[in-house]
Amino acid sequence: MTVPDAHLPALRPGEECLPGGPTLQPEARLCFIGRVRTPWAPGDCPRNIGAARDSGEHARIELAEGYAKALTGLSVGQAVIVIYWMDRARRDLLIQAPRHADGPRGTFALRSPNRPNPLAMSTVEIRAIDLDAGILEIDALDCFDGTPIVDLKPWLPTIDAPPGGAGS
Amino acid sequence: MTVPDAHLPALRPGEECLPGGPTLQPEARLCFIGRVRTPWAPGDCPRNIGAARDSGEHARIELAEGYAKALTGLSVGQAVIVIYWMDRARRDLLIQAPRHADGPRGTFALRSPNRPNPLAMSTVEIRAIDLDAGILEIDALDCFDGTPIVDLKPWLPTIDAPPGGAGS
Repeated sequence: MTVPDAHLPALRPGEECLPGGPTLQPEARLCFIGRVRTPWAPGDCPRNIGAARDSGEHARIELAEGYAKALTGLSVGQAVIVIYWMDRARRDLLIQAPRHADGPRGTFALRSPNRPNPLAMSTVEIRAIDLDAGILEIDALDCFDGTPIVDLKPWLPTIDAPPGGAGS
Repeated sequence: MTVPDAHLPALRPGEECLPGGPTLQPEARLCFIGRVRTPWAPGDCPRNIGAARDSGEHARIELAEGYAKALTGLSVGQAVIVIYWMDRARRDLLIQAPRHADGPRGTFALRSPNRPNPLAMSTVEIRAIDLDAGILEIDALDCFDGTPIVDLKPWLPTIDAPPGGAGS
């Protein structure tokens, strides 16, 4: 990770890295439970979920073989959290200078895909469920077509809303 | 995963597994960016974050060496999402029958730690920040002392609140 792969973005002024990059745990491996289907490819992907929603383009979650049953109990109109894997990101950035931000900031104060574990998440709304096929139609998502999904969770106010109104 | 480890919970009536268990991706490995400090051990851990808050016991996030700078830009009172790794969970359950639920339900309709990728997450409030030491004091967390952390993200209403009021 000290010499980043050619496909990773170069450092911008003010950005800082973790020397040597993160230490990956051999025992903490992820499985891909499915893929996101969107109309987006590198070059035309909305910058955030708000822009993805504004585009009017919906998205779809296609579960991998065998996982369909695990959707049992979800319902149309429900909010779910999608956690997905941004495999084209840098994992060594501590301080980042995103183009839209007003200066360099810490990785854990940003939603950038560049982070020690490139997990991205958004809360979306279920528009349709095909329990046999393992497919959820959702309102929108701001990621490339084919992005691997690692988890789906029901959004619950007691766990997922800011406590005491913080941050809202 | 078909023959679960001795420390994993046994199946309850109505529960179903993914035959063979999930396929782990060699290229999707996590790093641990730090540990959660709580007063909780197996046997006395609150069942959910509401109960952890009601206990009056606060929690702390201690970042691993080198990561402290990545907190730059966070502030006291801000809501952050903590994603942590529940390494004592089963990864093969598709249908689960939690004790508190009214019947078996799909894993993706539950917040159980038993899921293909045992990622748990809660939205918490920052009470204090020690940027030099890489420590965040937070209001509470419902996990064992020493639980590995894989990500911290600022809670943003446009990404993390249910769209259109769904689920709330």
